[in-house]
Amino acid sequence: MSATPIPQDRVKITDPFFSSYQRLIRQEVLPYQWKALNDEIEGAEKSGCIHNFRLAAGLETGQFHGMVFQDSDLAKWLEAAAYSLIDHPDPSLEADCDGVISLLGQAQQPDGYLNSYYTVKEPENRFKNFRDCHELYCAGHLLEAAVAYARATGKRAFLNVMLRYVDYLMEVIGPNEGQLHAYPGHEEIELALVKLYDLTGEQKYLDFASYFIDERGKQPFYFVTERLGQQQDAFRFSGNDAHGLRYFQSHKPVREQDEAVGHSVRAVYLYSAMADLALRRKDPSLKAACENLFASIAHRRMYVTGGIGSTHHGEAFTFDYDLPGDTAYAETCAAIGLVFFLRRMLSLDPKAEYADVMERALYNGVLSGMALDGKSFFYVNPLETDPKACQLDPGKWHVKPQRQKWFACACCPPNLARLLANLSEYIYQTGDSSLYVNLFIGSTVSFSMGGAKISVQQESGLPFAGTLRLRVSTDKPVGFKLKLRKPCWCQSLQSSLPYRCNEQGYLVFDRIWKDGDSLDLQLDLGPRRVYASPLVQDCLGKVCLSRGPLIYCLEEADNGKNLSLLSLPRESALLEEPLEGVLEGMVGLRAQGRRLCADAPLYGYAPAKTQPEPVFLRFVPYFAWANRGLGEMRVFLREDA
Amino acid sequence: MSATPIPQDRVKITDPFFSSYQRLIRQEVLPYQWKALNDEIEGAEKSGCIHNFRLAAGLETGQFHGMVFQDSDLAKWLEAAAYSLIDHPDPSLEADCDGVISLLGQAQQPDGYLNSYYTVKEPENRFKNFRDCHELYCAGHLLEAAVAYARATGKRAFLNVMLRYVDYLMEVIGPNEGQLHAYPGHEEIELALVKLYDLTGEQKYLDFASYFIDERGKQPFYFVTERLGQQQDAFRFSGNDAHGLRYFQSHKPVREQDEAVGHSVRAVYLYSAMADLALRRKDPSLKAACENLFASIAHRRMYVTGGIGSTHHGEAFTFDYDLPGDTAYAETCAAIGLVFFLRRMLSLDPKAEYADVMERALYNGVLSGMALDGKSFFYVNPLETDPKACQLDPGKWHVKPQRQKWFACACCPPNLARLLANLSEYIYQTGDSSLYVNLFIGSTVSFSMGGAKISVQQESGLPFAGTLRLRVSTDKPVGFKLKLRKPCWCQSLQSSLPYRCNEQGYLVFDRIWKDGDSLDLQLDLGPRRVYASPLVQDCLGKVCLSRGPLIYCLEEADNGKNLSLLSLPRESALLEEPLEGVLEGMVGLRAQGRRLCADAPLYGYAPAKTQPEPVFLRFVPYFAWANRGLGEMRVFLREDA
Repeated sequence: MSATPIPQDRVKITDPFFSSYQRLIRQEVLPYQWKALNDEIEGAEKSGCIHNFRLAAGLETGQFHGMVFQDSDLAKWLEAAAYSLIDHPDPSLEADCDGVISLLGQAQQPDGYLNSYYTVKEPENRFKNFRDCHELYCAGHLLEAAVAYARATGKRAFLNVMLRYVDYLMEVIGPNEGQLHAYPGHEEIELALVKLYDLTGEQKYLDFASYFIDERGKQPFYFVTERLGQQQDAFRFSGNDAHGLRYFQSHKPVREQDEAVGHSVRAVYLYSAMADLALRRKDPSLKAACENLFASIAHRRMYVTGGIGSTHHGEAFTFDYDLPGDTAYAETCAAIGLVFFLRRMLSLDPKAEYADVMERALYNGVLSGMALDGKSFFYVNPLETDPKACQLDPGKWHVKPQRQKWFACACCPPNLARLLANLSEYIYQTGDSSLYVNLFIGSTVSFSMGGAKISVQQESGLPFAGTLRLRVSTDKPVGFKLKLRKPCWCQSLQSSLPYRCNEQGYLVFDRIWKDGDSLDLQLDLGPRRVYASPLVQDCLGKVCLSRGPLIYCLEEADNGKNLSLLSLPRESALLEEPLEGVLEGMVGLRAQGRRLCADAPLYGYAPAKTQPEPVFLRFVPYFAWANRGLGEMRVFLREDA
Repeated sequence: MSATPIPQDRVKITDPFFSSYQRLIRQEVLPYQWKALNDEIEGAEKSGCIHNFRLAAGLETGQFHGMVFQDSDLAKWLEAAAYSLIDHPDPSLEADCDGVISLLGQAQQPDGYLNSYYTVKEPENRFKNFRDCHELYCAGHLLEAAVAYARATGKRAFLNVMLRYVDYLMEVIGPNEGQLHAYPGHEEIELALVKLYDLTGEQKYLDFASYFIDERGKQPFYFVTERLGQQQDAFRFSGNDAHGLRYFQSHKPVREQDEAVGHSVRAVYLYSAMADLALRRKDPSLKAACENLFASIAHRRMYVTGGIGSTHHGEAFTFDYDLPGDTAYAETCAAIGLVFFLRRMLSLDPKAEYADVMERALYNGVLSGMALDGKSFFYVNPLETDPKACQLDPGKWHVKPQRQKWFACACCPPNLARLLANLSEYIYQTGDSSLYVNLFIGSTVSFSMGGAKISVQQESGLPFAGTLRLRVSTDKPVGFKLKLRKPCWCQSLQSSLPYRCNEQGYLVFDRIWKDGDSLDLQLDLGPRRVYASPLVQDCLGKVCLSRGPLIYCLEEADNGKNLSLLSLPRESALLEEPLEGVLEGMVGLRAQGRRLCADAPLYGYAPAKTQPEPVFLRFVPYFAWANRGLGEMRVFLREDA
């Protein structure tokens, strides 16, 4: 039994927690990123993104700047701007969008092709390196943006540009003789084509997406054959080759893939499209593959923060239970992609577990990617850092102990912006005469069911308080099931209305709802201790703290240096405390702990004799770390039995 | 009060343990490596070493093969062969040596220059890249070999070749105008020049070594200025640049260096030369620097095996207490270099601690580098491996779970050969009317003291038994102090003669020795538990086992997969057991331990409920690991309180 997400124009987020994030996106991130794309920020890495399109449009002369996938930064920004416009019309922002969309039209080639890198730099090499050169990836992002912009504004100009480009791509790529039997090295266009199909209803776009998915990993491998006779740039991005075809999830047909492998962002974008197609095609083998891949991630290859990607080599998955905290990659984009994948799994098959993992990634691995002031970003989200190690151990140079203003490879900031601006679409879905509430984010949702026009107002105290109120407004009494996900972190709850629990993990409130009905819940947030499987070597003998959906961490700002010396006795009570300063409004945790004495020889024949010193440990939410200066951080700490 | 090592021609190793290693070197390693150098081994990495010299000599045409420092492989082999000839005259080996020495003479250029890479490949670039291109390193190794060969055979041909080369180098490099104020990117020639000085007594060679040491790290930095105007190949070995000048220990003058930094082999070769010069120059500031650098290594930056180099990036030191077991570099050559350094520290200032660390490195970090059959080698010596991780985590690709037959960069095998073939020089030294016994290796040593001709026969049960007997033969009664190092691992001992302990950590037997006197000792070998400082994060809450000088490890062959699940209760008795198969003759350890149940979700809110399963843990000596097939290994395991 599938379900359909309720789109953004029917959901208004009113949540204090996420409203402030959305306001940051609107007021800080989008304007900042627009300046960055226009190279107007001093001291930040140059983007060159708009400049490149102006070159492609013949409006400027000069050199292409940046990565081969630089176009995608603008695309993601446009998509984020579109979502923001849905909630908050802004003529000035819309004018900026229209202006740059017009530039895209000018940069488009007569045959429909649109890619600033190849147009400016290597026009003769178009479509010669699908593996490494991101043409389809950039096309996908532009297409997602165009669909979002059409939905937001009703304007068709951008969509028309992209329809021409997609039509051209469908001429060039496909199963017929004379066509390239290609698929992208970085998946993305597949899920964009599904969005285009959803918008237009045109089957050919769904078929094109299916083509990419079905062709992927077939033998002979396209990524091998396309490089034949192109020795010169066979290793253009040699890092990728470290993992071979697994890096691209193109080592075997997708339906045979049962382990999450390779570049983690690529992986979850692919799995998102697979879930999209499994739903729309009613394809049980594709659905089964999605379920296996979900299990591979969520049961064996995911950090407790919802971060994925255990190594910076290829920004990739490694193997089961290999989840080192200090060398983690856990890219912000990968956590975002995991959220994408899980929303689609929820549509395909509404199960609370998918929403649990989605919530885990959102509140921890995603939000940690941005500073509380919206002005700096993490690409890598480790579970443990020491600024000294980041500086002196080259194996940790990818880990930054402080967020950066912008990146040469600036995929994460606009990706965060587009997810958070579109977050209202991740809360609710309908199906089976039910309203599913997957996330507890204060909001008002409108939908029709059983002939009634209904709106439900959700008030949520999350993530810091467990109060939840849902108020139903309806133009007539109507029978439907309100299905609230029972969160995995919730040990007990009180409800003002009776319910039953279903097998999918939802609390089902099945009744005739009348206008003004309300449901009050009190969820027990914890705090609770979280233990990793003993197979996660890095976490053996350790524990981390959580409260509600939030994972907590120790920071040097509260606990001094050498956090590794700290331990938490199993019996210590976990106390809540209000936080202060930039963390004001958040709930911290406190517990009686111990600090080992470091005064010992490098190697000795006796364990340290001095008793550990009793200390108070102070924990803050992981997503909010690194907002109070440079220092150590760790999520898991030793637990004394 | 300094001391002088007793040279190899006065010491004959009779020890069963090391005799068998020396026999392996003689019967297996040297012949094997000779074939390798001549490219006569199928399936092994090509060396090209002899071929390159034939090219340089104009005897062959073709391409230079291998690394810029390929010459050093032959040099180390010749040095090892020379040491072997001292103990075991072998006309056939000597003929091979003479032949290749004649080739070196033919490859030498009219001006004395001798380097196959530059002669064949870049004659125009001679002396233009001291930082990266190993000219002085290769010269140093050839010089060490020439000195050894002169000592072994009395033949001067090789030495004459090298004297011509050194004279030429002294013309080109030096403090005067028109000379290059250069020093080597890879230290080595400094200690070779000291050996040349010791052999010839010519002051100019000691001065030349001092020049390199004193010039190093002065501003402006030679390695910076030599690259000016050579942008093209400024990053010839870009890996090196990761650490900047610290990689080369050239970031500041050597007397100001108090932390062991950069490439660990380079570092200990430098420190060896510094100790050599501190002794011969009676230079207190250089001695103080050596002491600081020793402390930096032995007290803060050394693995329990005596391995050094915490990261494969630059094969380098990182920072204090950063000693990860699974990503360790701990190169065999670095442990060898540490042994070199410590023998020199013992000469400079006989302290048992230096010998303790020397012994630790020798029995563990050095010997682990070679298979028990002498036919395969480790470059990297981790403290923890999982073949799966070596395959699937690119951050561990440098760690091999099995020894390799040969390497493209084949520095370690011949380095092992030259140390083991020359090991007799590491046992004894004289000074202060004393015979110092630094290592307990069965052997006979001859020396003169107080006008008497003395020989001492040492019988040692080490490393597997604690029995020790020293028998004195003398042509007349003579008073001297027999100073036996009291090993750090020895908790108690019984002695047949009275002694006192001195401040330097030696047992002093000060008496009139008569012919036939003997001294019997029984050293308590343990087994003992070893704990790392709590600042070594990777070892927190863990323990490793030792017995005598040997560090022990768990192997999959004895303990099954997932060694990380095993733990050792603090109260478990450590039992000894004879080992079998290829480990026959060795003593293993056995203890009651526990195995955690792995059946738990990736993240759960409760610690594992099932009781750990009781198991017998079996430990084998670390040096002997990976001789029984592919599998996991670990040195430190969790200790249950």
